[in-house]
Amino acid sequence: EALCSLFSPALVVDLDKVKRNVQKISEHYEKMGVQLRPHMKTHKTLYECAEIMTGGTRRCIVVSTLAEASFYADHGFDDILYAYPLPFDKVERCAALSERLDLFQVLLDHPDALEQLERRPLKDGRRWHVWMKLDCGNGRAGVLHSEPGALKLALAIARTGGVELAGVYAHCGNTYKCRGVEQIQAVAQETTDLTLQFMEKLKDAGITCRSSIGSTPSCSHPVKDMARLSEVHPGNYVFYDVQQSVIGSCRLEDVAVKVLTRVIGHCPHRNQLLIDCGWSGLSLDGAGALPTGYAVIEGHPDLKLGSMTQEHGRVEPISGPLDYDKYPLGTMLSLIPYHSCATAAMHSVYHVYSGGQLVGKWLPTRGW
Amino acid sequence: EALCSLFSPALVVDLDKVKRNVQKISEHYEKMGVQLRPHMKTHKTLYECAEIMTGGTRRCIVVSTLAEASFYADHGFDDILYAYPLPFDKVERCAALSERLDLFQVLLDHPDALEQLERRPLKDGRRWHVWMKLDCGNGRAGVLHSEPGALKLALAIARTGGVELAGVYAHCGNTYKCRGVEQIQAVAQETTDLTLQFMEKLKDAGITCRSSIGSTPSCSHPVKDMARLSEVHPGNYVFYDVQQSVIGSCRLEDVAVKVLTRVIGHCPHRNQLLIDCGWSGLSLDGAGALPTGYAVIEGHPDLKLGSMTQEHGRVEPISGPLDYDKYPLGTMLSLIPYHSCATAAMHSVYHVYSGGQLVGKWLPTRGW
Repeated sequence: EALCSLFSPALVVDLDKVKRNVQKISEHYEKMGVQLRPHMKTHKTLYECAEIMTGGTRRCIVVSTLAEASFYADHGFDDILYAYPLPFDKVERCAALSERLDLFQVLLDHPDALEQLERRPLKDGRRWHVWMKLDCGNGRAGVLHSEPGALKLALAIARTGGVELAGVYAHCGNTYKCRGVEQIQAVAQETTDLTLQFMEKLKDAGITCRSSIGSTPSCSHPVKDMARLSEVHPGNYVFYDVQQSVIGSCRLEDVAVKVLTRVIGHCPHRNQLLIDCGWSGLSLDGAGALPTGYAVIEGHPDLKLGSMTQEHGRVEPISGPLDYDKYPLGTMLSLIPYHSCATAAMHSVYHVYSGGQLVGKWLPTRGW
Repeated sequence: EALCSLFSPALVVDLDKVKRNVQKISEHYEKMGVQLRPHMKTHKTLYECAEIMTGGTRRCIVVSTLAEASFYADHGFDDILYAYPLPFDKVERCAALSERLDLFQVLLDHPDALEQLERRPLKDGRRWHVWMKLDCGNGRAGVLHSEPGALKLALAIARTGGVELAGVYAHCGNTYKCRGVEQIQAVAQETTDLTLQFMEKLKDAGITCRSSIGSTPSCSHPVKDMARLSEVHPGNYVFYDVQQSVIGSCRLEDVAVKVLTRVIGHCPHRNQLLIDCGWSGLSLDGAGALPTGYAVIEGHPDLKLGSMTQEHGRVEPISGPLDYDKYPLGTMLSLIPYHSCATAAMHSVYHVYSGGQLVGKWLPTRGW
């Protein structure tokens, strides 16, 4: 079936672009000799997308929620890193996954969380596999690299009974403020340097473990020194989005996801078209960031998605009057989202196509 | 079970407040002699909430998506008004509902949509029940009240074979720009006046049908003349939210929905707390509208939810340094959302409580 058979709004995924985006990154890291641990948070779908990203192995992934961890574990995935500061309410669920999978790995950034793990020893002589989150300037979770507490915590993890220091993990989300490859690579270099310096300190203390950095911009344009890391963990590269194209991670034509919508109203007194996609179908993320509003409207660089309500969007020309004859009621438009993670999160089904024809559906998991 | 047993983030609904909010509006309109047709778009849940809003009748509701229409129809609800400009891709699904229910009603605002209905006559001598959407200054969908085309379209609907003009429908979403009851009532008065003037014109042309206006602010503070309308159709009053309290529709303590979250990080170098709720659990709607950020943090008017990423929120004091001893890791905080419709849309389960104890779950429908 053709895309135009879909009821709108509908999130559609270009399978060929997904494969191309994944192949490019996979080949790059294979050549560099660095383990790619793809992040599932962008799509949160089962076999199809996760299978493509893991090259069919269903091993070595990273997730952002315990719902994702359980979802993948329930469907034959293993070596799962739940890269989220260990939440106190979910320790028992983490223990169950650790006792059931070959390798379930958790992450923490505070001594109190380590204490939680000590209090819940794993059965059958298993040990908690723990990554320490290091903040190399991103400013979200993690122990700040410059804090003496960082090394202290890593050593405490390594020396705690029933616990193993699996690695050091840094997310360089500060690349999201970059414009262009040069800036991206400066952040990638800095994060790599700080992480490697930390690994040296650990080595001096007689401890070795894995190292991992990640973010889609930095992993799309790796610097040479990243070859000295054990792993990288980008996620959004599977879909990309307008934001990534603005940062310089990809070209706009690499974006593999869009939201189909139809013109449902003509409002000449406001110089606007009304479309059947509001903020329930396209995330509000990116407000004010683009001259074209909340999305890029494919093939119509002169149009702007200026505002949205729950189920309606208002489209207007960036300048001049609208030519309504070009957009009869029912006309289908394609919205390339500013942020694909945020927009995918609004949809309970992704319609997958190849060569203009629908070839299947991907069903994401939701919740926490 | 107590609320603190929930994994966070979790959307929770205060059943007692829901009942109180619903009762207040229901009694008000019963006294005024105006039919209340509650809108389901805020919660989109089945029996429980819809049952409370319809006083157990499961009749006379309005929905914003065809997914909602089908969901309610599949579960014994009837007299459903799909108050969305008739979308060309969904005519056949609308026809099926019209042929199956006692009363399924559609809405349109363009002659092309009427043509679609003419082309698809209903079986068994049934007629399409059509409301015409009138724009009384809201500026979203609808034919502008001042356009000669408005009366022309209403007459065309009334005179088309196989179609019945069920009513005239106006949404006064322009009340969302109000601050205080006086401004709300001015908009309510204007929308009522314009709608009633339109009904007069129809009457002069020999046509009678129902009239309906709605929006949570206007319906929370009705003006006397609204007693001359057939129906009102508010929706958000079941939950309310911070936005409605700012507009003046309700008090902050009337808000029946909140998102529970836990403190998962201390970041003294940034004077911030990290919480386990990001934009996947709380809508980005309302950015910049509140001094407290994306939500009001219950019991902590001094705190601000300044920014969110997918699964993290950053909380900081509005002024001065944070006292971390007050917020040990694991501390539960309650986020009162700026916009409950938008935040509810991010959750696939609502946890319902009464008297501090969990009493059930409501499962919303999603999609279109």
